[in-house]
Amino acid sequence: MDITLQDTALYLKELDNYLILTHRRPDGDTIGCAIALCLGLRRLGKRAYVLPNEGATALFAPYWGDTLAPEGFIPASVVAVDIASEGLFPQSAEPYRGKVDLCIDHHPSNEGYAARTHLEGDKAACGEIIYALLQLLLFPQPEPPAFPFASPKALWEPVELLLPQDLALPLYLALSTDTGCFVYDNTSPNTHRIAGKLMETGIDTTQVNKRHFRTKSYTRLRIEGRIMETLELHQQGTIALAAITLEDMAQLHAGEVDVEDIAAFPGQLEGVQTAVTIREMAPGECRLSVRTTAGLNASKVCALLGGGGHAQASGCTVKGSVADAKAAILKAIEQVQGEG
Amino acid sequence: MDITLQDTALYLKELDNYLILTHRRPDGDTIGCAIALCLGLRRLGKRAYVLPNEGATALFAPYWGDTLAPEGFIPASVVAVDIASEGLFPQSAEPYRGKVDLCIDHHPSNEGYAARTHLEGDKAACGEIIYALLQLLLFPQPEPPAFPFASPKALWEPVELLLPQDLALPLYLALSTDTGCFVYDNTSPNTHRIAGKLMETGIDTTQVNKRHFRTKSYTRLRIEGRIMETLELHQQGTIALAAITLEDMAQLHAGEVDVEDIAAFPGQLEGVQTAVTIREMAPGECRLSVRTTAGLNASKVCALLGGGGHAQASGCTVKGSVADAKAAILKAIEQVQGEG
Repeated sequence: MDITLQDTALYLKELDNYLILTHRRPDGDTIGCAIALCLGLRRLGKRAYVLPNEGATALFAPYWGDTLAPEGFIPASVVAVDIASEGLFPQSAEPYRGKVDLCIDHHPSNEGYAARTHLEGDKAACGEIIYALLQLLLFPQPEPPAFPFASPKALWEPVELLLPQDLALPLYLALSTDTGCFVYDNTSPNTHRIAGKLMETGIDTTQVNKRHFRTKSYTRLRIEGRIMETLELHQQGTIALAAITLEDMAQLHAGEVDVEDIAAFPGQLEGVQTAVTIREMAPGECRLSVRTTAGLNASKVCALLGGGGHAQASGCTVKGSVADAKAAILKAIEQVQGEG
Repeated sequence: MDITLQDTALYLKELDNYLILTHRRPDGDTIGCAIALCLGLRRLGKRAYVLPNEGATALFAPYWGDTLAPEGFIPASVVAVDIASEGLFPQSAEPYRGKVDLCIDHHPSNEGYAARTHLEGDKAACGEIIYALLQLLLFPQPEPPAFPFASPKALWEPVELLLPQDLALPLYLALSTDTGCFVYDNTSPNTHRIAGKLMETGIDTTQVNKRHFRTKSYTRLRIEGRIMETLELHQQGTIALAAITLEDMAQLHAGEVDVEDIAAFPGQLEGVQTAVTIREMAPGECRLSVRTTAGLNASKVCALLGGGGHAQASGCTVKGSVADAKAAILKAIEQVQGEG
C-alpha cells in the first residue's frame, strides 16, 4: 500500500520498538537515512535501532554511534530505508523477508514488498525524504485548514526548523554521497536547499567531504595510473579502451574494493564519448563495462557479445585475452554504429 | 570607500556605459560574476560590457555570449568583480589602474584600490554577492520602515525571486567552480541555498558540472599516473613526495596547463598529512609545493629553504636535482617537527 509522508509520520508516532534495515553493500544514503531516522524516533521517546549490516565498510564507522541493534532485539515494527526490493537485503536482514511494515524509498523501481510504502522517485537521495519526514515528526505542524474554506495547499505551509546536529550529519552524508557531492545529474534544487538547511545547524561537513570525496587509497590511485599508462584511444579519441589485467591486480596488491566503480574512470577523459573498461577476471576471460555519453547505445553493443544493461551503461563477458576482448568490443561498437 | 550592497545597487542604477573587469588567469567566479552583472545591467536598460581577458581559456568559451566589449568602447564607469588588487589585473585592464569606480569582492585581502568597494569576506564565491545584488537591482524591493518605529532588520525582508536563466547560469558557474562543486571547506549554507535557487530556474547544470568537474585532459591524467608511479611515502605514509621531472613533461608532451594546481593531487592520498610536489623547472632547479592538513606548518618548512606562504600551503625553490630536493625538504620537515 502506498502511503503519504503525513501517514508515514502518523504510523511512526503510533508504535514503538523499531528496527531499521539498510540495503546490501550499504552506501551513505541508506546508512545516513537509517541513523537519522533511528535518532529521530528516539527523540520521540521510542526505542529504535538500526540492524547491523555485514557489508558496511570502515568508511562509515564514524557515523553509527549507539544506533546498532543489540543481538536478540525483537522489533514491533520493521522499517526499510532506501531498499528497492527484498533481493537487495543484506544477509542480516534475511529473517525480515515478507515482514517489512514500512518502506521509505526514492527508487522508482521499488517493488512494493512492504506492507506500507512511501516512495518519492524524483528525489536524488532517500535522505531528502527522511529530512521532510523528521520535520513532520519532530516539529509541531499547524492543522491544515478544513475544506471547503480554502485550498489546503495554498494556505498550509509545513513548519521547517533546524534539525538537531546528530540528525543533520547523517542526512548530509546521505545527500552528499548519493549525488557525488552535488555533482551528479540527480542533484536538484531540493537537494541544495536541504543541504543548506543541514549545514546551518553547524555540522562538520568538512570531515564528511574529506572522507568521502577528497580521499583515495594508494592502490586505487596506482590502478588509475596504470589504466592511463595502457589506455588505447580510437576513432579520433572518442572511444577509450582501458584494461586491468590479472598481472596489474597482483602487482599492485589490489582487491575488489580498489576497483569499485572503476568503469567510471576513463569516461572523465576529455573528448571520450564511449569508455570501455576491460577486466581480466581469469586467464582467458574478460569482463567488459561500456559507458556512453552520446549517441551510441551501450546495451545494443553489449548484446552483440551476449551481455546487456542500460543505454548508457552496459556490460558483457568475452572469452579470450584482453587483446581478444578489445578486438571484439571494437567490432561490436562499429557494427552498432553502422546500423545507427 | 566601503559601501553597502544597497548603495552598490543605487550606484549601478544611476549611471550607464559600464565596463566590467575580471582578474588575471580568470576562473569561473570572476567570469561568471562579470557576465551575470553585465546581463543584469542590460536588463535595466544600461549599456554594459565585460573587458576581454587575454588569460581566459577555451573552457569558458560557452559562457561569454555577446558580453565582450568591442574595441574602442569608452566606459563611463569601471567595475571590478572578484579582484583583490590591481596587481591581479590582466594585461587588458592595465589602462584602468587607478580608475576603478566600483569593486565587488569576497577576498578579505582586498586592497581597497577602487573608489567604492563592496566586500563580503565571508562568502565562498563572489557570485553569492552578485546574486544578492541582482535581486536588489532587478526586483522591486519594499521600502525599509522608517526608524524609530521598528528595527529595519526585523520587519524588512528583501524580496527574493528567481533570476532569468541567462543570469543564473553564469552565477552557478561562479558558485560551483569556487567551491570545487560544493566540496571545499568554504562552501556555506548560503552557497547551497543560492545554488538551489539558481537550479530552480531550470538551467542546465549538467553541462557545467561535466565540463568543469568531471572532465580531465589525457595529458593531465597521464601526469597524475606518472606521479603515482614514482610517489615516495615517508613517516608511515603521512608524508608523500611527488615529483614531475623535465623528462616526464617532455615524454608526456605536457604544458603548464596540464600541471595547473597539481600540488593538490597527492594530498588526496589516504593517510597523507603532508604532500610535497616537486617540479624540476630546469636542470639543477626544482620548485616545491608543500600542502599540509594537520599539525605541520608548511610556511615554516619552506622558510628553511628560502620560501614561504601560508600555514597549510607554501612553496620554495631548491637548487639541485629532484633527489636533492627530496632530501632537502625531508630534512626541513624533520627540523620543524623537532621544534614543534
